[in-house]
Amino acid sequence: MSDTTLPSMEGPVCPLPLKHNDQIILGHGSGGRLTHDLIKNIFLPYLSSPPLLSGDDFARLSKSNGEVIVSTDCHIVSPLFFPGGDIGRLAVCGTVNDIAVSGAQPLYLTAGFILEEGLPVQTLIRILDSMRTAAQEAGIQIVAGDTKVVEKGKADGVFITTTGIGFLPEGRHINGHQAQPGDVILVSGSMGDHGIAVLAERGELGFSAQVVSDVAPLNGLIQELLAAAPNTHVLRDPTRGGLATTLNEIAAQSQVGMLLYENAIPIQPAVQAACEMLGFDPLYIANEGKIVAIVPAAEAEAALLAMRRHPYGKLASRIGEVTNDSGRVLLKTSIGATRVLDMLAGEILPRIC
Amino acid sequence: MSDTTLPSMEGPVCPLPLKHNDQIILGHGSGGRLTHDLIKNIFLPYLSSPPLLSGDDFARLSKSNGEVIVSTDCHIVSPLFFPGGDIGRLAVCGTVNDIAVSGAQPLYLTAGFILEEGLPVQTLIRILDSMRTAAQEAGIQIVAGDTKVVEKGKADGVFITTTGIGFLPEGRHINGHQAQPGDVILVSGSMGDHGIAVLAERGELGFSAQVVSDVAPLNGLIQELLAAAPNTHVLRDPTRGGLATTLNEIAAQSQVGMLLYENAIPIQPAVQAACEMLGFDPLYIANEGKIVAIVPAAEAEAALLAMRRHPYGKLASRIGEVTNDSGRVLLKTSIGATRVLDMLAGEILPRIC
Repeated sequence: MSDTTLPSMEGPVCPLPLKHNDQIILGHGSGGRLTHDLIKNIFLPYLSSPPLLSGDDFARLSKSNGEVIVSTDCHIVSPLFFPGGDIGRLAVCGTVNDIAVSGAQPLYLTAGFILEEGLPVQTLIRILDSMRTAAQEAGIQIVAGDTKVVEKGKADGVFITTTGIGFLPEGRHINGHQAQPGDVILVSGSMGDHGIAVLAERGELGFSAQVVSDVAPLNGLIQELLAAAPNTHVLRDPTRGGLATTLNEIAAQSQVGMLLYENAIPIQPAVQAACEMLGFDPLYIANEGKIVAIVPAAEAEAALLAMRRHPYGKLASRIGEVTNDSGRVLLKTSIGATRVLDMLAGEILPRIC
Repeated sequence: MSDTTLPSMEGPVCPLPLKHNDQIILGHGSGGRLTHDLIKNIFLPYLSSPPLLSGDDFARLSKSNGEVIVSTDCHIVSPLFFPGGDIGRLAVCGTVNDIAVSGAQPLYLTAGFILEEGLPVQTLIRILDSMRTAAQEAGIQIVAGDTKVVEKGKADGVFITTTGIGFLPEGRHINGHQAQPGDVILVSGSMGDHGIAVLAERGELGFSAQVVSDVAPLNGLIQELLAAAPNTHVLRDPTRGGLATTLNEIAAQSQVGMLLYENAIPIQPAVQAACEMLGFDPLYIANEGKIVAIVPAAEAEAALLAMRRHPYGKLASRIGEVTNDSGRVLLKTSIGATRVLDMLAGEILPRIC
C-alpha cells in the first residue's frame, strides 16, 4: 500500500492548503493531493525525521546492534484528552514502554492513524504536538506513518496504532519467563492513576477525582534501574488489567507463585476513594507510566533506590516476593488475611487505552 | 501498554472458552481473562510464531543483516470481503509489498486489530485464516499483535494496522529519488483491478463487473526482478491514488519527468468498461498486487522478462520513459495527443484499502 511513509516535502504544491479550522474529509485518505496536503501542512511540522522526509513507502533505519526488538499497540482511548495526557502521548509512551521492558533502548516508532471524517484539524494538531513532545522526551524518532479516513460514524475521532523498534544489547534476557522463587517484586509508583483519570474525565465518577494520568515514557527509568540491578529478571508495565493481571501473566509464564503485601502497594488516596465509591479494585486498573520489576533479592535495594531517584519512580516500593506456589498470586491484606489475586475476569473500564 | 504480543499458551485455562458462533464483546479488549481466551482460542490457532508464543509485551527477532527496513499501513476496507481477497490478505500483502519495494526481503510483521463490539467471531476467524495463508505465501512471520475492542457503532467491523520489518542487503539503494532521464518505466500487470473489484462488491457499479482484486504479496516477483535487473532505480506499488499518483510522486522526488504511452498500459476490458460507465480513469484506481519498476534502459528487457515469468507478472509491460521534464508526467494517448497526467485531486473511492 502506498504512502506508508509520509511523502516528500518536494511534492507538488497544493492549491488549497489545509487550514487549522478545517475538518478532515474522506479525500484526506485518498492517497492523492489532499493526502499530500494533510501530510505536508499538518503532519510534517510536528512529526519529522530523515526517513519520513524521504517520501518512500518504507523507512530505512540504522544497522542493528544486537537483536531487533519490536512491539505494537492500538490506542482507542475515549475521551481523546484527559488529565495528564491524551491519545497522542499514550500512543508514543505505550509502545516505548513495551520495547523498554525488554531491556532494549527504544529508537524508532511508526504510527498509523485512522481518522473519522469531520475530525477538527485543530484536534489532530493537538495530538500530533503531544506525540512530538513525548517522542522527544523518550529520545525516539517517528520514522514511518500512514493515515486513513473513514466515514463519519464509522470510527471515534482518532485511533492510533504505533509500532516500536529497539535493539537489545548482547546477553540481556529479561522476560516473563525469568521470575524465580526468592525474587523481590517492585513497582515504580502508585497504581490505578491512568484508569481513574480517564474515567473521571468521562464524568462517570459523579465527582471530580483530581487524579492525573501517569502516562509517561519509562525508558529512562528502566535504563537507570538496569544499571543498578543488571540481573533484573522481569520488567513489565501493568496496563490493561492492572497489576493483578500482569502478575498473574508472569506467574503463569514463569510457573512461580507470588505473595504481595497490600499495605506496601502504593495507591493515591484519591484513586482509593474513587475505587471504593465505584466498587473497583485499584489492582485491576490500568497504569500507563509504571513498571513492575522482578529482581534477585541481592539487587532489590539497589533497584529500589535507582527508581526512587528518577522523577517517574519517586514512590517506588517493594510489594512482595516470588514463591514456588506455581501460578498462584496471593495478597496479604491490611487486616492480615490472605486472598487469591486472580486475573481480571471481565471488562471494568472499556476504551481506557 | 500490555499485551503487545499475544500471551503465552501457558496462561490460565479460561472457564468459558470462546465459541465460533459467539460475538466479540468489550471484555475481549480488557487485557484480562476474556482477552486471553480470545487470543488462545481464536488468534493463536491461526497466527503463531515463537515470539508470539513467548507471551511477552515485545517480540525478540534475529540480529539484522544490513539495515533495518520498516513500513506501516492501516487497513479499513469496506466491505471486509471482496472478490479475490479480504482485509486480512490486504493487511499482510500491503505491508509486505511496501518492505519489498525497498529491495529488502520482508521477514516479520506485527498486526494491531481494532474490533467493533458485536463482530461475529466467525468473521474474525475467516480474516485470520486469510492472514495466515498470505503470510505463508510471503514467507513472513507474524511476531507481535494487539487487539482492542470499541463499542458498537464506534468502528466498522475490523480495522487492521500492520507493520513490516525486513533487512536490506548492503549496497542496495532503491527509492523514489533514483529515477534518471532515459530510464524505462515498467508495470507488472493490469491497472485498477483492486479498486474496481471492491467497488463492484459494494454494489455501486449497478452491474456485476467480474473483476477480481489483484491483492498479492510481491516479494517473490521483486526478488526475481532484482536478480535480472540488479541496477533497478525505483520500485513502488501503485495503491491509493493509482499509477498516476505514484508516478507523480516519483517524478517529484527524483525531479524528473515521465512520458507514458496509454496504449502500452495494460487494463482489463472489464475494468475499462466499469471505468467508462462511472467516469473514472483507471490510472487513478488502486492496485494491491502490482509494481512500477524504473530501470536503466540496458536492464529493461531483462526486468520485463523476469516479471513475465512470474505468476504475478504475466502481463508486465513497458509503459514509458523517464524524461528531464522536471516533475511533469505526460501521457501520449491512443489517438496521438499528449496530456498532463496529474496527481489524484480528490477522493474517488473511499475505504478501498
